[in-house]
Amino acid sequence: MLNEIKIRKSGGTLMAKSIWGILRGLESFSQLIIFEKYCLTFVIRCTSITDYPKFRHRGLLLDTSRHYLPVQTIISMLDAMSYSKLNVFHWHIIDDNSFPYQSKAFPSLSDKGAYGQSAIYSTNDIKLVIEHARQRGIRVIPEIDSPGHTLSWGLGGIPGLLTQCSDTDPNYFGPIDPTVDENYSFIKTLLTEVNELFRDQYLHLGGDEVNMNCWNNSKKLQTFMTLNNISNVEGLEDYYFKHIFNITRELKTVPIVWEELFSDNIHLDHNVVVQIWKPNNFSSLVQEVIDSGYAVLISSCWYLNYIKYGSDWSSFYNCDLSDIVDRNNLLLGGEACVWGEFVDETNVLPLSWPRASAVAEVLWSQVTNYTEARLRLEEHTCRMKRRGVPAQPANGPGFCTY
Amino acid sequence: MLNEIKIRKSGGTLMAKSIWGILRGLESFSQLIIFEKYCLTFVIRCTSITDYPKFRHRGLLLDTSRHYLPVQTIISMLDAMSYSKLNVFHWHIIDDNSFPYQSKAFPSLSDKGAYGQSAIYSTNDIKLVIEHARQRGIRVIPEIDSPGHTLSWGLGGIPGLLTQCSDTDPNYFGPIDPTVDENYSFIKTLLTEVNELFRDQYLHLGGDEVNMNCWNNSKKLQTFMTLNNISNVEGLEDYYFKHIFNITRELKTVPIVWEELFSDNIHLDHNVVVQIWKPNNFSSLVQEVIDSGYAVLISSCWYLNYIKYGSDWSSFYNCDLSDIVDRNNLLLGGEACVWGEFVDETNVLPLSWPRASAVAEVLWSQVTNYTEARLRLEEHTCRMKRRGVPAQPANGPGFCTY
Repeated sequence: MLNEIKIRKSGGTLMAKSIWGILRGLESFSQLIIFEKYCLTFVIRCTSITDYPKFRHRGLLLDTSRHYLPVQTIISMLDAMSYSKLNVFHWHIIDDNSFPYQSKAFPSLSDKGAYGQSAIYSTNDIKLVIEHARQRGIRVIPEIDSPGHTLSWGLGGIPGLLTQCSDTDPNYFGPIDPTVDENYSFIKTLLTEVNELFRDQYLHLGGDEVNMNCWNNSKKLQTFMTLNNISNVEGLEDYYFKHIFNITRELKTVPIVWEELFSDNIHLDHNVVVQIWKPNNFSSLVQEVIDSGYAVLISSCWYLNYIKYGSDWSSFYNCDLSDIVDRNNLLLGGEACVWGEFVDETNVLPLSWPRASAVAEVLWSQVTNYTEARLRLEEHTCRMKRRGVPAQPANGPGFCTY
Repeated sequence: MLNEIKIRKSGGTLMAKSIWGILRGLESFSQLIIFEKYCLTFVIRCTSITDYPKFRHRGLLLDTSRHYLPVQTIISMLDAMSYSKLNVFHWHIIDDNSFPYQSKAFPSLSDKGAYGQSAIYSTNDIKLVIEHARQRGIRVIPEIDSPGHTLSWGLGGIPGLLTQCSDTDPNYFGPIDPTVDENYSFIKTLLTEVNELFRDQYLHLGGDEVNMNCWNNSKKLQTFMTLNNISNVEGLEDYYFKHIFNITRELKTVPIVWEELFSDNIHLDHNVVVQIWKPNNFSSLVQEVIDSGYAVLISSCWYLNYIKYGSDWSSFYNCDLSDIVDRNNLLLGGEACVWGEFVDETNVLPLSWPRASAVAEVLWSQVTNYTEARLRLEEHTCRMKRRGVPAQPANGPGFCTY
């Protein structure tokens, strides 16, 4: 994993044991070059750098369901990610609000569930994103969040897909109905297709914020639970994910799930990765998951969509992971999350940059001293602006000379 | 001031008593036209509207000193302002951090005090902005903030301009030195030039946040005060503004000042407009200023740069002015302020829109019900996006169909 850069008067060398190391080294190399304003030329200092990332999973989540993001915006985000050596684009592509993923097997899902014909990601769009990411050493992990966060799926005409939460209100729908066998073959087809398209080792299954009230209120589900000796709705969730993990096992993919599955004591396959997102006492949950033998991703500290006035990026350095005991390297890394409630193509770039670069640095080097980071981040902001990323001011008044 | 729009099957009429009324009416007219998606055509409903603004001064402040804003960005802001019928661009053009205003009489001020040669507003730039604004019924009021907020002026080589706050530290500068007679002829030349360029009835003189500690610590100023029988630094401020108001009186311009001048009991010319900006108990200060016979502008409720997560525009409707007794119509209106500490060309447009539109509505119609405003603002956001303004989401998940 060690990468090495040496710049001498006689020339420079870049050594790495993988193509990914070479890519990160080239990024570092490009950042060593500065414009010398008195000589009006580009210069590089003689230097020697040995470097490697602390965490192998350095991600950014984009939510394209609450607001659709144009492909060009995603491409710009990928460019910016590579400038900060982030290597995972977690594509939260669908959710309650809209279904922009165009399925070949079930085109009605996006035809009916997307915000409109101009708010759909075609197979070609997705391939373009994946290829653009790949060339920058970024893997693209799709999230097919279920059984909750699926209201938009319900528009696609799959009969019996969503739970009817109420016997009196036929339009009150909840999570996917776990008692309908056909739902599992539908999901299998969908996940298989998604897996073939994205071709990544990982597949994010979601699993957060399941509306248990709905399942509790449904007479049909309560009857099913009695017949099948399931004592509570967490048991129903377990039943649901037993089927889902059967699918991911067949697909030979590594499932990622949100923390609720661990907290709800759902039976997890041994290779499941648990993503922690709630902010309170997250580090003790991280430890618990690791102690149970599961791999972990952390997002708790890095919800970029929660904006604050001023240099709020400094708080992203306050994600102290130093107390975590991780003998088997189960802490894979983490992800900055840009949830889309108040984010669309008009503001996602300045909102995310340079704030996500702070997260990227923590994931690369586990530094916690944000006082020292201040000037680095300012310089990096100007670098991003030079490269066409509209990165907003990090530290108050100033000006980028270029 | 009444403007009237009538749309009938036989045609439409627009009546107003001024060119400005016609401009606002045309804006209303354009907003009545909607795209009818089933007929694939633009339609307008038969309607009749009688309308007029509650306040005559509906402004937006942009700060181009803490971060330089390109002329094109200012032009886009003016376009967006006109879509919300704002009619005053308060150009806080210079401040401590940089001096982008290119003075004909004192070119060294921007040569030395701007962030760089690419961060200067030439006379032509300013004329372009003023003309673009004029065509949209927007007046441009320049702010030449003094005696505080002038550190960047000190770089321009005007000898003795700034107060030396300390006898031991020759590099600790404070506000403009009010004891140097030459400073008043310098300021007179500067204000005369600015007044001739902007050609507006109003001239903003600033006057906020004067560093009184500096004046208190300067032995030179203390000696001057003793010799001239000035008992405290507020007296010195009064002495300073006596000279400045002499200048504005000669220029026949209406001075606007920040609230500190009123609070510090500075002698104000009868025609001075006081701009209230501090948030606490602002309405009692507004009443006090009105009762003293001065005209007032309010900004206290509308500091757009203080961002919050979510639909924070709703708080802009909570600016209750209904208790203010204003028999002589001294409350001219108010201004949304976009201070530039964390704002530059990367984020000023989505940060300001549609949030400034909420302020604009309060200033136009004095509505306070933000629940009803919600859908209007959403529609207006999509309208602005259609017209090329990157207005960020107002109300959470959604999509603009166009």
